[in-house]
Amino acid sequence: MKKFMDKDFLLKTKSAKKIYNTCKDLPIIDYHCHVSPKEIYLDKHFSSITEVWLSGDHYKWRLMRAFGINEYYITGNATAKEKFLAFASVLPKAIGNPMYHWCHLELKKYFGYDGVLNADTAETVWQLANQKLADPSMGVRGIINKSNVKFIGTTDDPIDDLIYHKKLSEDKDFSVIVAPSFRPDKALNVDKAGWIDYINKLSTVSNVKIDGIDTLKQALKDRLDYFVKVGCKATDHGLDYAFYNDLSDKDADAVIKKALKGKPVTKEEAEGLKTNLLVFLAGEYCKHGLVMQIHYNCIRNPNTKMMEVLGPDTGFDIIGPNNGSRLITALLDKLYYLDILPRTVLYSLDGNDNAFLDTLIGAFQGTDIACKIQHGSAWWFNDHKLGMEAQLLSLANLSALGNFIGMLTDSRSFLSYTRHEYFRRILCNVLGDFVENGEYPKDYKALTDIAQGISYYNAEKYFGLE
Amino acid sequence: MKKFMDKDFLLKTKSAKKIYNTCKDLPIIDYHCHVSPKEIYLDKHFSSITEVWLSGDHYKWRLMRAFGINEYYITGNATAKEKFLAFASVLPKAIGNPMYHWCHLELKKYFGYDGVLNADTAETVWQLANQKLADPSMGVRGIINKSNVKFIGTTDDPIDDLIYHKKLSEDKDFSVIVAPSFRPDKALNVDKAGWIDYINKLSTVSNVKIDGIDTLKQALKDRLDYFVKVGCKATDHGLDYAFYNDLSDKDADAVIKKALKGKPVTKEEAEGLKTNLLVFLAGEYCKHGLVMQIHYNCIRNPNTKMMEVLGPDTGFDIIGPNNGSRLITALLDKLYYLDILPRTVLYSLDGNDNAFLDTLIGAFQGTDIACKIQHGSAWWFNDHKLGMEAQLLSLANLSALGNFIGMLTDSRSFLSYTRHEYFRRILCNVLGDFVENGEYPKDYKALTDIAQGISYYNAEKYFGLE
Amino acid sequence: MKKFMDKDFLLKTKSAKKIYNTCKDLPIIDYHCHVSPKEIYLDKHFSSITEVWLSGDHYKWRLMRAFGINEYYITGNATAKEKFLAFASVLPKAIGNPMYHWCHLELKKYFGYDGVLNADTAETVWQLANQKLADPSMGVRGIINKSNVKFIGTTDDPIDDLIYHKKLSEDKDFSVIVAPSFRPDKALNVDKAGWIDYINKLSTVSNVKIDGIDTLKQALKDRLDYFVKVGCKATDHGLDYAFYNDLSDKDADAVIKKALKGKPVTKEEAEGLKTNLLVFLAGEYCKHGLVMQIHYNCIRNPNTKMMEVLGPDTGFDIIGPNNGSRLITALLDKLYYLDILPRTVLYSLDGNDNAFLDTLIGAFQGTDIACKIQHGSAWWFNDHKLGMEAQLLSLANLSALGNFIGMLTDSRSFLSYTRHEYFRRILCNVLGDFVENGEYPKDYKALTDIAQGISYYNAEKYFGLE
Repeated sequence: MKKFMDKDFLLKTKSAKKIYNTCKDLPIIDYHCHVSPKEIYLDKHFSSITEVWLSGDHYKWRLMRAFGINEYYITGNATAKEKFLAFASVLPKAIGNPMYHWCHLELKKYFGYDGVLNADTAETVWQLANQKLADPSMGVRGIINKSNVKFIGTTDDPIDDLIYHKKLSEDKDFSVIVAPSFRPDKALNVDKAGWIDYINKLSTVSNVKIDGIDTLKQALKDRLDYFVKVGCKATDHGLDYAFYNDLSDKDADAVIKKALKGKPVTKEEAEGLKTNLLVFLAGEYCKHGLVMQIHYNCIRNPNTKMMEVLGPDTGFDIIGPNNGSRLITALLDKLYYLDILPRTVLYSLDGNDNAFLDTLIGAFQGTDIACKIQHGSAWWFNDHKLGMEAQLLSLANLSALGNFIGMLTDSRSFLSYTRHEYFRRILCNVLGDFVENGEYPKDYKALTDIAQGISYYNAEKYFGLE
Repeated sequence: MKKFMDKDFLLKTKSAKKIYNTCKDLPIIDYHCHVSPKEIYLDKHFSSITEVWLSGDHYKWRLMRAFGINEYYITGNATAKEKFLAFASVLPKAIGNPMYHWCHLELKKYFGYDGVLNADTAETVWQLANQKLADPSMGVRGIINKSNVKFIGTTDDPIDDLIYHKKLSEDKDFSVIVAPSFRPDKALNVDKAGWIDYINKLSTVSNVKIDGIDTLKQALKDRLDYFVKVGCKATDHGLDYAFYNDLSDKDADAVIKKALKGKPVTKEEAEGLKTNLLVFLAGEYCKHGLVMQIHYNCIRNPNTKMMEVLGPDTGFDIIGPNNGSRLITALLDKLYYLDILPRTVLYSLDGNDNAFLDTLIGAFQGTDIACKIQHGSAWWFNDHKLGMEAQLLSLANLSALGNFIGMLTDSRSFLSYTRHEYFRRILCNVLGDFVENGEYPKDYKALTDIAQGISYYNAEKYFGLE
Repeated sequence: MKKFMDKDFLLKTKSAKKIYNTCKDLPIIDYHCHVSPKEIYLDKHFSSITEVWLSGDHYKWRLMRAFGINEYYITGNATAKEKFLAFASVLPKAIGNPMYHWCHLELKKYFGYDGVLNADTAETVWQLANQKLADPSMGVRGIINKSNVKFIGTTDDPIDDLIYHKKLSEDKDFSVIVAPSFRPDKALNVDKAGWIDYINKLSTVSNVKIDGIDTLKQALKDRLDYFVKVGCKATDHGLDYAFYNDLSDKDADAVIKKALKGKPVTKEEAEGLKTNLLVFLAGEYCKHGLVMQIHYNCIRNPNTKMMEVLGPDTGFDIIGPNNGSRLITALLDKLYYLDILPRTVLYSLDGNDNAFLDTLIGAFQGTDIACKIQHGSAWWFNDHKLGMEAQLLSLANLSALGNFIGMLTDSRSFLSYTRHEYFRRILCNVLGDFVENGEYPKDYKALTDIAQGISYYNAEKYFGLE
């Protein structure tokens, strides 16, 4: 029987441990996350573990709701300590939940606590963590440095001024690269509330008066150029579901003009405009050598009432299985045909899509880099041991696991870097099993190449960080 | 190597065995099944193992058909003994089928037979089982008592008079609670044959002349009130697939009037009327504190020819994957928004829906009880070791496993209570693995809470049986 | 720790090894593949391992593309040796890919090489393999005999003259049965390019002037009769996705006449004509006692640009999940109702369909043979350890594993017979696990029956080869 989360956590075999030793100390490239560059620049410090753990982490909110905890203790006016105690009290029954592991990994790494968190120990942990957080070294920059992070790819709106990215790049005291990623969802979502307001802001920021397809493209192009100047390496598109409707510029122009007048657009029109813009943007991404990420199959804001109360990104989004295999395929086919398919990373929130995606990427590879088209690491609700194993094994069976660019946190919290450790342990255990089962030779040079590549070097190359 | 189905069956580790010991003797709450209250009241005795095992169990019929067995030996005029011998002869090649385990668990528990059933032993088992069944203690009541059952939730039509439920509740010699569950599918299925006849019967039973939406609701409301008076704790809806079409009362009224004239209704009209009635009924369920169960993604009666010969529920239904994630979500959103979302248990026959459902429930939890919205135990074709493990692990990863209300038999047979044992063994093995793998601390107090909760106490609380 | 791919490869337990010993030496019935009867008749010899391994194997091409290898080294003008070296160099990073195992199984069995293939050993392997291939015993016939093959079912177009099948059946020096399989996709695909040309060829070959539904059926019937005369045992239909549209002969006739004029047909018309022809052909298959295979849920030629360059079947096809459960069900229902459902083997390229298919077959079984309707062995992208285990376990849980007709190569290569070994090892390991876990008795007579049945005897009976 293994000890609870000790140094060999998730490493079941000797081979796994041996392989993990070759990659555990490599730096972290966190190429997709949602942390605040402002908080990094200002080296934010936290008043309590509640602020760093519970104030913005909708994973934890969701878990508390599954225990019938009142919003008062989640997003409401309870004190920081009350909230922490409420969270600690539910954790024991979350057996098998990745949150259980993430919490204890973070308590160990950042606060030196290697006990168990529950109602009985909550007071102790509260004191200990807050005491540590009061230390000057436990600001955002200290945490990042302690985590051996080399690169952080934030997620940013085209209208963002990227002021803190610029300041950070000029800051000689901080060597970690913090690069913006271009996420223009709001410009594409002509069918969602607030689009006109957003377009007006984009007009202002870009100094291009947007009144049709040409000007919208010009504004986006200008902002993208600016992002690239500030160090952007990657872009991101969040699609609720896969669609493909090849709309001409002329028709796309008509959709924009109609929408700008406040008239509702049809589903087909919206999908057509989005397709048109995706194709345009892919071409731009190619020019700049940017990576295009596509996240899809998510139902956002399914609970209208709580959306009205708490707004988006508050722990209510869900997996949205959808029958779009032929549509995402059509999009890639179009871009490949036009020779404007950038390095692309595909993520579906529906784990059932693993095998489909692993064959899809195989149909559109290029020759400038190994696995130009990637199936992204197990995303969000799949971001647990079984989900990661499923993604890794499907990729191994249907593509070339050794070329995988590996993990990202996708997190809003600065303590989440331990998820890279979580991933590396799971990865090395999978690799170790192949050896232990006689399915791969005991060639530790080759295994080291694979483990180090997936942990670090593949992403370094893929995002052009060498 | 483990012995065949011995006392440690399915329990691979010491931790699993230790945890199983804490919950194996707890009573059974079988909150959803299809047994006959009449047979319980009359304490039915069985003339042979064929009557109790094969006369109504379409799982066994299906298995025999997979061996090319003629219907003569399945549903036809063969003798009881011929049928039993035919079934016994196919069992050895059903390796890995849960039927193999269920049969041997039942033979051991109810007939004291711990050998193997096959063509060679069939005669012996036939004699032994029939001899035992002749014992006065082996009537339905004896079997239920021997099984340590505390609560039985049957499945009943609104037009049922519930006479045997009432008699049972007045019977001082039988302390097990036998409660009706309200399943109004026939009233909602305006698109299926026999609807007008059914509505006429409902009119008669409820003494409400149904001629539109108001009177249909009134009739259903009256019958529900009656069910509640007789002890109903739960309701059930079987939907072929997820749908959502928000139809006004006025339009729903028109659909009913049209259908009552014998005119065919469109798919949209049928879905609209059903949605309207589901919303209405959910409100009523809330008033009474009833649990709403929804079973969906099933293709019923896919074999038209055998449907004509044998009728429904004879072992031909199949899994019906369908792209309805956004629709079942819309239904829950509507009920939540109107503040009439009852305690709800969702079951999909498509195991691929596990992760979707586990995120869906997370978006609509309430505060009156932990996990107000539940993902039901692995249903029907998923009711095997791998299916149960998949449901438990997905629930653990995406929700809070410790709050799960656990197992139900869904069975028509009084010997199926051993499936609770099957479930508890699988559950405890999963829990034990977390400990053995160092993914959960060796905190047996917490583990006991979890195992006992899922085996018994969570359901006791959820269905208000304390 | 197990040694790399030694004699106990994939066999984890004593029980697994014991069971494997009972079936490993049984002959092979390769009832579905794509090898060339001409090459068998002419006893083709290979100039190098590149010719036999890389010249036609789009699995290997796909893998090389996942490494960014230029087409020059895949399908282009590089030398045979350059291509082999390019392939060998990528293999180590394909950890966990079935290609890794297939290659090493083939190198061991056919070339006596039990080392590892990588960039360092490529030269040695190149020399060794080519030397062996130069041996007169290493022609196609020698390879087939060495592989203990009893029956080969090729895949053939109705317009094929089957000349080599006939010559082979008359060749006293070669005792392996090489039977054609009838695959009339091109006749049905009225919606695909080239249909008119194909129909003209079919008219010529069949000597039936095709101008409507009756003549098309007559031509297909005549060709099928010819196939049966030449020894055909099975047929095959490749459907991109499941459909069902019950079109009358009159309407089907109109669709044909329209299409013959070069006018485009609608999706509904095409599906209607195909359904009409499938129903007709199933009736013919029944008359002849032929097995009907249906392969579906594949997106063919998704990459338009590479399709233009390299044509079909060049390693670009992908899994095509599609929501067609109710449609494939409707097709089987129709055939069953009309009493013209032949022995049928269903394969979906989407592994998520496993459980659906395993229940579907259960709804349409017959009495002339055990498991008349079969869920085919894990197909194509599922043809790896995890995919095979998933198919076997789903079949075991939902049907009767012991009646499964087992493995086929589906291959274009004469070295692929080792995949039967791969399958048998995986099968026996699954069976062994049931015993080791106490889920099946240590009844080695029953286990031998099951293992030998699935490895050989079930297929022998199913295809009428006794």
